[in-house]
Amino acid sequence: MDIERIKAAARRLKGHARVTPLLSSPFLDDIAGRRVLVKAECLQHTGSFKYRGARSALSAMTDGDRARGVIAFSSGNHAQGVALAARQFGVDAVIIMPADAPCMKIDNTRALGAEVVLYDRSSEDRDAIGARLSRDRGLTLVKPFDDPEVIAGQGTCGLEIAEQAAALGITQADVIVCCGGGGFTSGIALALEAKAPDMRVRPAEPEGFDDVARSLASGRIERNSQTSGGLCDAIVTPQPGDLTFPIMHRLCGPGLVVRDDDAERAMVQAFARLKLVAEPGGAVALAAALYHGDDLQGDTVIVTISGGNVDRGVFMAALEKFGGP
Amino acid sequence: MDIERIKAAARRLKGHARVTPLLSSPFLDDIAGRRVLVKAECLQHTGSFKYRGARSALSAMTDGDRARGVIAFSSGNHAQGVALAARQFGVDAVIIMPADAPCMKIDNTRALGAEVVLYDRSSEDRDAIGARLSRDRGLTLVKPFDDPEVIAGQGTCGLEIAEQAAALGITQADVIVCCGGGGFTSGIALALEAKAPDMRVRPAEPEGFDDVARSLASGRIERNSQTSGGLCDAIVTPQPGDLTFPIMHRLCGPGLVVRDDDAERAMVQAFARLKLVAEPGGAVALAAALYHGDDLQGDTVIVTISGGNVDRGVFMAALEKFGGP
Repeated sequence: MDIERIKAAARRLKGHARVTPLLSSPFLDDIAGRRVLVKAECLQHTGSFKYRGARSALSAMTDGDRARGVIAFSSGNHAQGVALAARQFGVDAVIIMPADAPCMKIDNTRALGAEVVLYDRSSEDRDAIGARLSRDRGLTLVKPFDDPEVIAGQGTCGLEIAEQAAALGITQADVIVCCGGGGFTSGIALALEAKAPDMRVRPAEPEGFDDVARSLASGRIERNSQTSGGLCDAIVTPQPGDLTFPIMHRLCGPGLVVRDDDAERAMVQAFARLKLVAEPGGAVALAAALYHGDDLQGDTVIVTISGGNVDRGVFMAALEKFGGP
Repeated sequence: MDIERIKAAARRLKGHARVTPLLSSPFLDDIAGRRVLVKAECLQHTGSFKYRGARSALSAMTDGDRARGVIAFSSGNHAQGVALAARQFGVDAVIIMPADAPCMKIDNTRALGAEVVLYDRSSEDRDAIGARLSRDRGLTLVKPFDDPEVIAGQGTCGLEIAEQAAALGITQADVIVCCGGGGFTSGIALALEAKAPDMRVRPAEPEGFDDVARSLASGRIERNSQTSGGLCDAIVTPQPGDLTFPIMHRLCGPGLVVRDDDAERAMVQAFARLKLVAEPGGAVALAAALYHGDDLQGDTVIVTISGGNVDRGVFMAALEKFGGP
């Protein structure tokens, strides 16, 4: 994995992925006590950065493999990214989703033309389901994070951060990335290593699912004791990836861990101050910037809002609890 | 008023106003039955396009006039735009606001450093209050729409629409603009007349406050019978302006009129499909595109989301009424 692969992904994504804006608000700066720049990946196609990696992976496949169709496991954002990319290429997509994934994510994945196969997290083996479908139909697996072309696709967001920050005269910052398996985090870290080497990438995770923070601290891959629960479904994974962890270990850290209610507070700030809809998992980086400033350094922090696919009930609950007037 | 004044405003705004993205969603295309492109001015500084006109006006003033400070009348979005522009120039801003303006708008205007003077719409004469303050303190009035430099500032959004649409290969479209006094509408219309002459600007207004639609139909300035009420506070004005109406009469129409509940439905679609927070008045153009398609022509419609400064209660009510799962 190196910057050339990310640049190649950027060429393939040009005209397809959106260049998302880098936003700010004086009100957020006041809360954080430093300048806060927000990379609004909730405005990416399908409402999350995952489209970048999915489109990167599908566009890197051979025509023959792609024509037979693709398969993916996902609780929702990767699902929608793969579904849209597959539809754009005119190929079949089968998405294996947990039955308790947010309704919006399941509905959207279907509406984007994918065949959704639901499974019960507690009683069914998704890998066995996926292996059978792949074998029977010749589908190619698009992994959610531990794949070089997926990492390269997510890394294109890092190229944009470097360029947009430089345009504001900013070359030094902590860059907080919402982190699940580490595809987004490691991709951005590789891009910034090449394009903005004075920036430091800080993975942000929800409390109880801080496998990356603990892995970075111990120097080896650590697992979460639970793999579901909490509000931040988008970024709950069992452990960092075999490809993503060495990159994060070399380039990122220390990790930041936020409570679910901090993520909800950050969702409300994104609503009020940025006019953006963030999902809980997509708001953990902003939460870290706003409410864990003691763990940060420097005058400027850059955060990702990684996705905005939130059911209205979850969003309204956050507004109800932490909204202003 | 001509394109040169808008280009001059664009030069003054460069590096200050945001170039807001032109967004889309296949789900919105499906509802509308045509391609829908959304100019997300809710992502502008202060959460609405009004910052463009305010910054344009203040940057066009003489240093001496500006140094004595500015005054504005506004229910909220112009207020915030003027407050931020004044703070950036380091000059005083006095904003006269109705006491029943949305809380968020009053709070934000104060937080941006302006002196807010509240008045009672039913019993007090805001013009008399303003005249006294202007005279006593030498403040210059920044009008909300009927001023050439304000219109030119809003027109910079039209330059961006022309450029962003052309990059997608689009030169023909109905362009629906959320319309109050007509500054935004007439500015965009002037910009598109020069840069995308095959586009047609369609003002959108809430039912009961359709002064522009009626004025365009009759060919002379018509007044609203009421000047408050309804959800769309941002775009309720007594009548089109003396400067804006002739421009709109020459370039725009016919007007589109939507119900408040259509605006709420559009807010929910912006939430779910674009991850954007729209205020009711900022959603009327999207509402017209989604729910009044019979009044439109062509394969593509471009709409503005003019602002996102909505109190959480209003937003939650819309989600409650018209949200999905």
